[in-house]
Amino acid sequence: ARPKVGYVYSSKGETAFKHKPIKEIKVAEIKSKPTVVPEDMSIYDSIIQLFINDTGTLFVENKGYLTGAVSRKDFLKITLGNTDIHKVPIGIIMTRMPNIITISDEDSAFEAAKRIIEHEIDSIPVVEKVRTEDGKEYCKITGKVSKTTITKLFLELARD
Amino acid sequence: ARPKVGYVYSSKGETAFKHKPIKEIKVAEIKSKPTVVPEDMSIYDSIIQLFINDTGTLFVENKGYLTGAVSRKDFLKITLGNTDIHKVPIGIIMTRMPNIITISDEDSAFEAAKRIIEHEIDSIPVVEKVRTEDGKEYCKITGKVSKTTITKLFLELARD
Repeated sequence: ARPKVGYVYSSKGETAFKHKPIKEIKVAEIKSKPTVVPEDMSIYDSIIQLFINDTGTLFVENKGYLTGAVSRKDFLKITLGNTDIHKVPIGIIMTRMPNIITISDEDSAFEAAKRIIEHEIDSIPVVEKVRTEDGKEYCKITGKVSKTTITKLFLELARD
Repeated sequence: ARPKVGYVYSSKGETAFKHKPIKEIKVAEIKSKPTVVPEDMSIYDSIIQLFINDTGTLFVENKGYLTGAVSRKDFLKITLGNTDIHKVPIGIIMTRMPNIITISDEDSAFEAAKRIIEHEIDSIPVVEKVRTEDGKEYCKITGKVSKTTITKLFLELARD
């Protein structure tokens, strides 16, 4: 079966960190495109998306809101087990909100790196918090910051 | 079957980068312990080592010399296929020398980050080159620099 295509969000990227103290660099300036898939996509098709987008973590959405995340490590664990990856949807195996560490545009790149290291994750979703009419708080994903993002930022800083 | 235990190398870690220009930080100061397995370990046992050591890349040795590397992404691809992971040794599926990008103690952390990004790898082995009596050059692995290493270094630099 031909895999469904995952959808991604655009982001603005800037590289002018030359004369800025490291701590003042914001998440909004460095975030990159997350790969997002729907909860009902099969594990197998999700892994295909992981490869097509050459990324380490998939973010999962339902009705436009972030509901979960799955890492390459999670997928490797699943493929070793007895799960039928062609039938089971990713929504079943993902780490589900509110157990996902997030970050906002206005936070610093330093804070993003800190959360990545402290929580031992490869990638942190950048979110905008939205309160719906029923009073519940949801997250819209607008980007991600990964160890790759931070490594590229380190290169920019060292290049000066 | 109980998995064989992978062996690791010790490394010195320093954190005094406060008053040093970024480009002067050397690989020797930041490298961490690599997880190394022998070529004849099965793919399955190797994946167990990946999880036990909570690492993203395994390095492979034969007779004390670096002969290969396998990433979490490589393993995920293999587990999706028809390979008998309990029988096939890691030496069959690894990326083999000389197709492995390496770095040395005296190189800069900047250069390590640059090679990681340019070659799209998660981790680069730190090696010492040795010429044997038969005139061939081999690499002894003494550490690794990963995107995690660089992210931690970024944190140290930003903390000042």
